[in-house]
Amino acid sequence: MLKKYNIAVIGATGAVGQVLLDLIEERNFPYDSLHLCASSRSVGKKIIVNGNEYVVEEINEELFNNIDFVFISANNEISKNIGLLASKKNCIVIDDSSVFRMNPDVPLVVPEVNPHALKNHKGIISIPNCSTTPLAMVLKPLNSINPIKRVIVDTYQSVSGTGMAAIAELNSQSYEILNGRPPTISEYPHQIAFNLIPHIDNFHENGYTNEEMKMINETRKILEIPDLPISATCVRVPVKIAHCESLNIELSQPIKLETVNDIFSKVEGVKILDDPLKNLYPTPIDVTGKDEVLIGRIRKDLSNKNGISLWLASDNLRKGAALNAIQIAEEIISNNYL
Amino acid sequence: MLKKYNIAVIGATGAVGQVLLDLIEERNFPYDSLHLCASSRSVGKKIIVNGNEYVVEEINEELFNNIDFVFISANNEISKNIGLLASKKNCIVIDDSSVFRMNPDVPLVVPEVNPHALKNHKGIISIPNCSTTPLAMVLKPLNSINPIKRVIVDTYQSVSGTGMAAIAELNSQSYEILNGRPPTISEYPHQIAFNLIPHIDNFHENGYTNEEMKMINETRKILEIPDLPISATCVRVPVKIAHCESLNIELSQPIKLETVNDIFSKVEGVKILDDPLKNLYPTPIDVTGKDEVLIGRIRKDLSNKNGISLWLASDNLRKGAALNAIQIAEEIISNNYL
Repeated sequence: MLKKYNIAVIGATGAVGQVLLDLIEERNFPYDSLHLCASSRSVGKKIIVNGNEYVVEEINEELFNNIDFVFISANNEISKNIGLLASKKNCIVIDDSSVFRMNPDVPLVVPEVNPHALKNHKGIISIPNCSTTPLAMVLKPLNSINPIKRVIVDTYQSVSGTGMAAIAELNSQSYEILNGRPPTISEYPHQIAFNLIPHIDNFHENGYTNEEMKMINETRKILEIPDLPISATCVRVPVKIAHCESLNIELSQPIKLETVNDIFSKVEGVKILDDPLKNLYPTPIDVTGKDEVLIGRIRKDLSNKNGISLWLASDNLRKGAALNAIQIAEEIISNNYL
Repeated sequence: MLKKYNIAVIGATGAVGQVLLDLIEERNFPYDSLHLCASSRSVGKKIIVNGNEYVVEEINEELFNNIDFVFISANNEISKNIGLLASKKNCIVIDDSSVFRMNPDVPLVVPEVNPHALKNHKGIISIPNCSTTPLAMVLKPLNSINPIKRVIVDTYQSVSGTGMAAIAELNSQSYEILNGRPPTISEYPHQIAFNLIPHIDNFHENGYTNEEMKMINETRKILEIPDLPISATCVRVPVKIAHCESLNIELSQPIKLETVNDIFSKVEGVKILDDPLKNLYPTPIDVTGKDEVLIGRIRKDLSNKNGISLWLASDNLRKGAALNAIQIAEEIISNNYL
């Protein structure tokens, strides 16, 4: 009989938490007990998973005495406190925050890219930032056959990356503007409806945002190329779900487009949607609710003989967060890395 | 006494035409007679300019017998037919379409960048594509002191680039979606509200769109660097007015950020908005209705010692179209290139 696990989901009512619960059902994740935790605002709320009703509870230290997997998707402070606490109590923590990601003792894992990094985990595993994961999934297979020299990436990131309140704000601002009223601004420094904000997370002294530095540093760690030249610009766009990225990739040698297509037709987790004459290329609505990273607009870089350009779309709540977290747990179970 | 000119505006009721009429008022453009032409749908419509009422008229060959400047912003077919006709009748045609731009006999002009190209015009002058103009305005001053080696640009382009009907469609689709109804799609191949479309204009065989090839070829012509390596990805975003661009620029030598700031504090038509810690960087709503191209997020490229990255926003209807057209006419008048 298949072993079943005791699970706690921290941030169960958030944008990522809700998708995580959907995926637990969808993938028949082998759980025995399930504890759903959230902030005091949501405590007492009832959530149905696999036909059973669960009551959202407050986080309680005792809870972790009998838990196998703790999925955290809340904020950095909760991840730090609960992550350390739960891992001390021998839970396996799969964390969606940035607090542990660059810690050399913490594997930062995309199962399709670097599953081997899970082998010697010490109780905490980080999942990458939602804009890093699809980037690493595209770079890895190319790098394996034609080492990557340089990457330039510009992102088009949806508001669900910020959370449920930001989706509500995009809706309410859109509604206000359509009705000729000034938009009410609270989630971002500027109006996001019908606007763009080239600013995600705090600014560093070098002029880059933390989101941009996360993409750069996390990609290097996942690909195990500590000095890979990457430049990133991260932009929030008025889209609800799914992040898109425009990639310019310089390889060591020229590559044929047929080779690129051939590589990605075999890669797990990536799907090609690239038939421009039929208006087929990835868009946010195409990928929303989908597991795969979609890639398209694959073409030779006209400015560099060793370069290619392409466009990707990825559901930031699924592969960018909840799905990646679940897949890590599945990988740990199937390899007995418990 | 200042000479005054007879003007015809072809496409007077379109998104660019309306801004052109605003600018004729705003800049006290020295006109004597003013003829407003549009498609039969708009004929008979009354428009007030400088307090005088003008009735929209159908295009009529006779009209051009006594006209000095013809501004065309309609479609390629009208530009071709009317442009050739009016220039034969000794009008100066300032055209917003792509039909004449790459013709070696037609100057392609951004007055702040290459005003000298106007000198020997032969009656038709093209204005660049709305995404090319701000790009050329940023590249030119850098290139003058530190020759540019390579440019990678990703755009975030508003729907007004398509026209009034696309603005209406963004509004109506947003309204439909907010009310739980499926969006009605007619202007683009896909839903644009709360979505992104990495496809502007037709596709070429090389996988690039015509919009991307226009940015590449037009920039080379304006800067007079026929082989400048440029790669472009053009994306339609759910924004009403203003185009943004993320630029990665490789120069011949390293450049200090102070030098970049110094250059652009002196360049006409470009304004720096770059104080991240105060959340100041260009956004579409900041630049809508403004003449200047705004630049910000200026930083060293972390992937190349000779590179910089920056972000720009430009009102595609003003500097990207109507303003640039008017400035060309003003330049022709003040230099007596008539």
